[in-house]
Amino acid sequence: MNPHPKITLVGAGPGDTDLISLKGLKALSTARVVLYDALVNEALLEYAPEDAVRVYVGKRANRHAYSQQQINEMMVGYARAHGHVVRLKGGDPFVFGRGGEELDYAAEHGVTATAIPGISSSIALAGLQGIPLTYRGISESFWVITGATTAGVVSDDLYAAAKTNATVVVLMGLNKLREITEIYQNEGKGNLPVAIIQNGSLPDEKVALGTMDTILSRVTQQEIGAPAVIIIGEVVAKHERFVLQQHNSIAV
Amino acid sequence: MNPHPKITLVGAGPGDTDLISLKGLKALSTARVVLYDALVNEALLEYAPEDAVRVYVGKRANRHAYSQQQINEMMVGYARAHGHVVRLKGGDPFVFGRGGEELDYAAEHGVTATAIPGISSSIALAGLQGIPLTYRGISESFWVITGATTAGVVSDDLYAAAKTNATVVVLMGLNKLREITEIYQNEGKGNLPVAIIQNGSLPDEKVALGTMDTILSRVTQQEIGAPAVIIIGEVVAKHERFVLQQHNSIAV
Repeated sequence: MNPHPKITLVGAGPGDTDLISLKGLKALSTARVVLYDALVNEALLEYAPEDAVRVYVGKRANRHAYSQQQINEMMVGYARAHGHVVRLKGGDPFVFGRGGEELDYAAEHGVTATAIPGISSSIALAGLQGIPLTYRGISESFWVITGATTAGVVSDDLYAAAKTNATVVVLMGLNKLREITEIYQNEGKGNLPVAIIQNGSLPDEKVALGTMDTILSRVTQQEIGAPAVIIIGEVVAKHERFVLQQHNSIAV
Repeated sequence: MNPHPKITLVGAGPGDTDLISLKGLKALSTARVVLYDALVNEALLEYAPEDAVRVYVGKRANRHAYSQQQINEMMVGYARAHGHVVRLKGGDPFVFGRGGEELDYAAEHGVTATAIPGISSSIALAGLQGIPLTYRGISESFWVITGATTAGVVSDDLYAAAKTNATVVVLMGLNKLREITEIYQNEGKGNLPVAIIQNGSLPDEKVALGTMDTILSRVTQQEIGAPAVIIIGEVVAKHERFVLQQHNSIAV
């Protein structure tokens, strides 16, 4: 048993390894164990000590999938056995990252746990594309909504959001894109600009730009797949290629 | 004239200097000029080359206030004269940071401009206090709204937000707190938990916890001032001191 069990949730950022915080790197450098997710860039693991244990606990592809309960137990078990556990999570730990559940579990088991924020893809990927989530005179707010609710249906929040002028960001929602466009079309917003960003901040980043009426065909044409972020609102028209792509679409 | 004028908007994060990204630091290290805002931690300026020009363009206290137009002109003027200008902004450049206007101005004047995202106080300050913005079964979304609209009134988006189950984060809204509590009380949500965080992530951080019915007196008791972030929603009850403070309030 280690006399100083400790857990640090660290936000790894949206993908580019340079988008982790200094504070996150410092935590990694003292980790005895790193538990990391599917959306974490594995190159970040190099910042952990050479002899630290590295455990993949993601849920993608053909690799073994752990349940949240198993991850919680591993986190506390490793901390008791080895000391400092870094739980490295994509984006920010609390933006649909189940960081809250992990803090609760650690507290219930008497292990100190803290969190270091990360750059969330919900904010950063728009910015890297030159799309400002807020803009004076255009948008006074932005609303970040999960596309993957526990019930598997589109969140009620998205129906409410479609009635407002808020910029809307949907994470993990690409497989709900048809329903999302229909919700906006039913509000008479078929012309509202939309951007879809796959693998944002990485060398293989792909961006589709369109409107609620055209975005589905753009996604098909450009072969955009998950994981992707959906950005909805007039601010999307600020993207430097937005006008051009609309013209191309008319020309075709 | 410099042959390579270039502007990089860099998000400095919420205050703690270790919450800037590696990528932001790298940009700072090649800056010839740094234009920085009031909410930026000045200790970050040490990462710029010793001979770089450092210009404060914030709008607080007794220091000279520049208009956005003046800042835009300085940004482009310095880039043409000196080369790489880093525009260092609190939080993330596009979360009520006017980053979009700065990109537009640079583009109109033919100067290359890009942005490096930052850790936004809208997300990070809740997390550092152990308040998860989203939590399975409690909140499927969060909505970030400015308290300082161009018109000087509470945003229509906040009236809409009070009708939903979204976690709501209000930036620059402390002087509108009374109106905000009334909006929620009018929706029958006087018991909804609220947190106010001043100087988040810094050594002098202050936190007030309460409900819509009690938060105004908490803020007065604890002498909370601007700049502060307001976090509204059931997730606030996840704060480790929330229950305790409610009990104390009953005991008083």
